[in-house]
Amino acid sequence: MANVVAPDPLDLTQRLIRCPSVTPAEGGALDLLQSELEALGFACTRLVFEEEGTAPVDNLYARLGTAQPNFCFAGHTDVVPPGDPADWSTDPFESQIVEGELIGRGASDMKGAIAAFVAAAGRFLAGRSGTPAGFGGSISLLITGDEEGPSINGTRKVLGWLAGQGETLDACLVGEPTNPDALGDMVKIGRRGSLTGTLTVFGKQGHTAYPHLADNAAHRLVRMLGALIAEPLDQGTEHFQPSTLQISTIDVGNPASNVVPGKATAAFNIRFNDSHSGASLERWLRTTLDGVAAESGGGRYELAVRVSGESFLTPPGPLSETLAGAIEAVTGRRPELSTTGGTSDARFIKDHCPVAEFGLVGKTMHQVDERAAVADLETLTRIYAKALEDYFG
Amino acid sequence: MANVVAPDPLDLTQRLIRCPSVTPAEGGALDLLQSELEALGFACTRLVFEEEGTAPVDNLYARLGTAQPNFCFAGHTDVVPPGDPADWSTDPFESQIVEGELIGRGASDMKGAIAAFVAAAGRFLAGRSGTPAGFGGSISLLITGDEEGPSINGTRKVLGWLAGQGETLDACLVGEPTNPDALGDMVKIGRRGSLTGTLTVFGKQGHTAYPHLADNAAHRLVRMLGALIAEPLDQGTEHFQPSTLQISTIDVGNPASNVVPGKATAAFNIRFNDSHSGASLERWLRTTLDGVAAESGGGRYELAVRVSGESFLTPPGPLSETLAGAIEAVTGRRPELSTTGGTSDARFIKDHCPVAEFGLVGKTMHQVDERAAVADLETLTRIYAKALEDYFG
Repeated sequence: MANVVAPDPLDLTQRLIRCPSVTPAEGGALDLLQSELEALGFACTRLVFEEEGTAPVDNLYARLGTAQPNFCFAGHTDVVPPGDPADWSTDPFESQIVEGELIGRGASDMKGAIAAFVAAAGRFLAGRSGTPAGFGGSISLLITGDEEGPSINGTRKVLGWLAGQGETLDACLVGEPTNPDALGDMVKIGRRGSLTGTLTVFGKQGHTAYPHLADNAAHRLVRMLGALIAEPLDQGTEHFQPSTLQISTIDVGNPASNVVPGKATAAFNIRFNDSHSGASLERWLRTTLDGVAAESGGGRYELAVRVSGESFLTPPGPLSETLAGAIEAVTGRRPELSTTGGTSDARFIKDHCPVAEFGLVGKTMHQVDERAAVADLETLTRIYAKALEDYFG
Repeated sequence: MANVVAPDPLDLTQRLIRCPSVTPAEGGALDLLQSELEALGFACTRLVFEEEGTAPVDNLYARLGTAQPNFCFAGHTDVVPPGDPADWSTDPFESQIVEGELIGRGASDMKGAIAAFVAAAGRFLAGRSGTPAGFGGSISLLITGDEEGPSINGTRKVLGWLAGQGETLDACLVGEPTNPDALGDMVKIGRRGSLTGTLTVFGKQGHTAYPHLADNAAHRLVRMLGALIAEPLDQGTEHFQPSTLQISTIDVGNPASNVVPGKATAAFNIRFNDSHSGASLERWLRTTLDGVAAESGGGRYELAVRVSGESFLTPPGPLSETLAGAIEAVTGRRPELSTTGGTSDARFIKDHCPVAEFGLVGKTMHQVDERAAVADLETLTRIYAKALEDYFG
């Protein structure tokens, strides 16, 4: 352990990109990672999970040291499909550098950050002569191959397995590409929740010339939707934007202009902050819809609700402060602590320990010619290494 | 002219039904009618109209006498298709009598009434020894073969031709089946108008997680439709039910629950009374929609409006009084003077003279086993004859 040599983050990113690990394929990425981590002294466990109706997925948990606190880097080696490789300026799995940018699927989301995890851990250890005991804690990596897919056989099950082993995490840094424009823009400390509702209203079909003999389902649906969008859900909270409800579709499908429709459906999506939960929103929805139904003399409706994630927040504190401080020390910029954007595996980790997210610039993620600035890979490694120093310092 | 023999209404109805005059086919019906009318002394003119994109249609105008007032019976010999004849209990064009009812396509809508026109005119003339001069006026029949079809080459063009000839009508009785349940129930003295609107709202597509970057077309459509159905259009007028607006469809067709739709459409139908016109309603629609658009910060929409008929009314007066009196004298029942229901050629005639509608019982019109009570054919003939007596009396 005495002569720890930290891998180069650029080189490791390139080698990871060359592993075609489109979900659910492992593609050699976890094998590569494991050998790099073992060279640094990490103890690695591979965890393959499967479930009926889903493909088996390979995951990796690696830990250096046995003491607490256990600082965890979390992320995924799986990537979304490249689409037609002919649309790319270079092969999506060749990882070529063009004008200072590394082009390849996963460059920003998030093989670059994973390489930076390993490189930062290596540098941190090298600075302490590679002695885990030297920093009085542990560094771990929780790397899944099922983040871009159904997220069923990935991080959630690894966390369950860890809990079963009595293995605890004390802080977790997820390496998702959180920066909108430039490295140092944004740390994410939480996410809004997401609820999808499907509303079907039933009435009685009839002729538009005799509406008193019919019961127009479209009218009741318009009134119900009108009530749902009448007022903002809230004004936002300390760390969150206001919650929003967006109608995604309304469908009646009646081609006859003289027919009163007997059935009408709509779907909507709510992105909600920490002043709501999926359950409180469902109660609000049903109360509001019942109210409209009662006003219009009753009428049957069906509401199906799916909560794909509750809102969560790791309030600004030691973890986000350590991270923001490291970012400022390395880049000179103070990041925004944000809760905006889509979902990530942080929604599972937040039930186990404080979690924050910081990675590369996300602008090109999931796109053709996904890329990461070569300079950013080095800068990110320095930020992660500084965060480790400060966390254990 | 001295020995006028009025045809029997049952026999003439049967012979008319045997003419397969499904729109636009003449089917021999107008030829038969012309020969019966000429036998009574009517001067007959056949008028074939055609227009690009429509089939040529045969029409008949017949007049007995040259003096004014000219009392006109109006109707149509064309019928809707029978569907599958196997669904009928007897052949739809055989005109069989089953348990006191004449079964056949057009029995109630409206070959029975046309036979009653001719029979009533014959009886009226026979009572006066067949002398037109004896009643100081004229009786005419305006019979089209294009009422169940596009109504382009029918009554409207015959009326135009009459106007061109300097030929005027002083009162018109349309023989549509106006009675909901029993002969004598209802005289129609007008109809509501009908307007169909198609509304398309444009916004800007986007992601439901970032609604501030999008402009939800479905939200604006819900608010616009909500404004259109918020209040009754009116409370009804002396002779009309309240006007109604019915949304017939709403369509977005967005399958992705996380996508904010950029376009949304709806269609609606307004049945309106004499407190509105198609033009006044279109103004109201545009003002209301502009108001909603302005409230929600602008936004483009397109509204297409089609007025298939304006509302009209022949206020209760000499014609409806004569008719109601005749009905009461023959049946002992006082008919309701109504403006309910669908459309008829009265919408064209009302621009030329007072018009009222009264015919057989409409319950089976357009249906399989369309029928008319044999007794009703005689009663209707007596009512029409009595109306002629009273009109010219």
